[in-house]
Amino acid sequence: MEIPKNHPRYGSLKKREALLNFYDKGVVTVSGLISHGRGEAFDYLMGERSQAFSLNAEKAALEKLLKSERAVISVNGNVAALAGEEIVKLARRYGILVEANIFYWSRERIEKIVSYFRDLGMEILGLNQDANIPGLESNRGRCESRGIFSADTVVIPLEDGDRAEALKKMGKFIITIDLNPLSRTSRFGDITIVDDVERAFKNLNNLREPEYAGTLNAYENGKNTEMAIRFIGERMSSITNWPDL
Amino acid sequence: MEIPKNHPRYGSLKKREALLNFYDKGVVTVSGLISHGRGEAFDYLMGERSQAFSLNAEKAALEKLLKSERAVISVNGNVAALAGEEIVKLARRYGILVEANIFYWSRERIEKIVSYFRDLGMEILGLNQDANIPGLESNRGRCESRGIFSADTVVIPLEDGDRAEALKKMGKFIITIDLNPLSRTSRFGDITIVDDVERAFKNLNNLREPEYAGTLNAYENGKNTEMAIRFIGERMSSITNWPDL
Repeated sequence: MEIPKNHPRYGSLKKREALLNFYDKGVVTVSGLISHGRGEAFDYLMGERSQAFSLNAEKAALEKLLKSERAVISVNGNVAALAGEEIVKLARRYGILVEANIFYWSRERIEKIVSYFRDLGMEILGLNQDANIPGLESNRGRCESRGIFSADTVVIPLEDGDRAEALKKMGKFIITIDLNPLSRTSRFGDITIVDDVERAFKNLNNLREPEYAGTLNAYENGKNTEMAIRFIGERMSSITNWPDL
Repeated sequence: MEIPKNHPRYGSLKKREALLNFYDKGVVTVSGLISHGRGEAFDYLMGERSQAFSLNAEKAALEKLLKSERAVISVNGNVAALAGEEIVKLARRYGILVEANIFYWSRERIEKIVSYFRDLGMEILGLNQDANIPGLESNRGRCESRGIFSADTVVIPLEDGDRAEALKKMGKFIITIDLNPLSRTSRFGDITIVDDVERAFKNLNNLREPEYAGTLNAYENGKNTEMAIRFIGERMSSITNWPDL
């Protein structure tokens, strides 16, 4: 499986290797690998970097997180693999809760995610799922009453659309992180961050108060998401020298 | 891993399950799963069906295949998993050679692909790799002298860009099948089929002589690929009710 250094997509393939590592550890599922591929395609389309619409949403998201009474970041296998360290940094700095929450439920995999975060120096929720998100089949709806269930704001990176919808129906403020601005998850966001999950959390960590304070009030999620859609559509027609997918 | 029947992407998830089956059999790699995800994203963007630009290219491709002296269809793990049966149907009907050719080389996996095609009723090449495509590192360039190496026309579905380029440099006529019209592979195609690999071979099987005869001469690959790029770019901005990615 060695990647030749002269391969035009060496960088992206190395990043993918990191994900495969977590797959070997049993944290990422085979479905998670396919999802990652979908993300890769959209990331190419947006130039593999955070764009203005990403940063607009990230600034508003940070201000909202700091104004929330009980914000929770939901992490699944891919999110842990791609952005675990950045999430720990953000969560510890601002005292935000983190909860392991996976689509294909398995006690073992939740334990692995929790213990990965413990290795990174942070205790997260997810082992004591004593509540259910209404409207979802039982395995899909499991969560902790002191975590996602009672949160006022939830950050749901790389989330399933049904779950995003169910959380929205519970009245929560939804912050999504998804490279596809048209996914159902993105469309259920009150703040829809269209960005790579690692870059998004890195940006949240790098923002200083003068940059984000006061942005939430002026932020218009519909307009911002439309910018993302237009950007990707236009880039599609203008890319002339695209790295191999 | 049971998929709830009411999940909005039930159909696509079931198709993915088929790929995961071949992953379990050791035919598809973890990288192949990620690639499939990228394909899924582009397939959504093109509406999950063959478009006019797909069929234009497929008609010309079939005419070209039938006019070639030695056409070879190259199959890797994903291609076998997604379109094995359709390929056997086409290859047997028109006497086209098929050769197993994989990016992450492994004798065992080539054997599995060959034996899968044997189960489908067809002997394919790939076990006696006695030649090398010039310009590639050795494991990437392996092929059979009586197959891909001496072919005048090669069909390379879901192929790596470096290999597509190297085959092109050998002077072969290249027919690509790739959902991304901007990939390096697509750009090395003499005929660039922008379509799902199963649908593409199904269409090739369904075409009757009056539909394809005489299309090759009038076919302009640059213009046709541009149509595909424009279509996807425009669809991106116009999709309003998109199934969840």
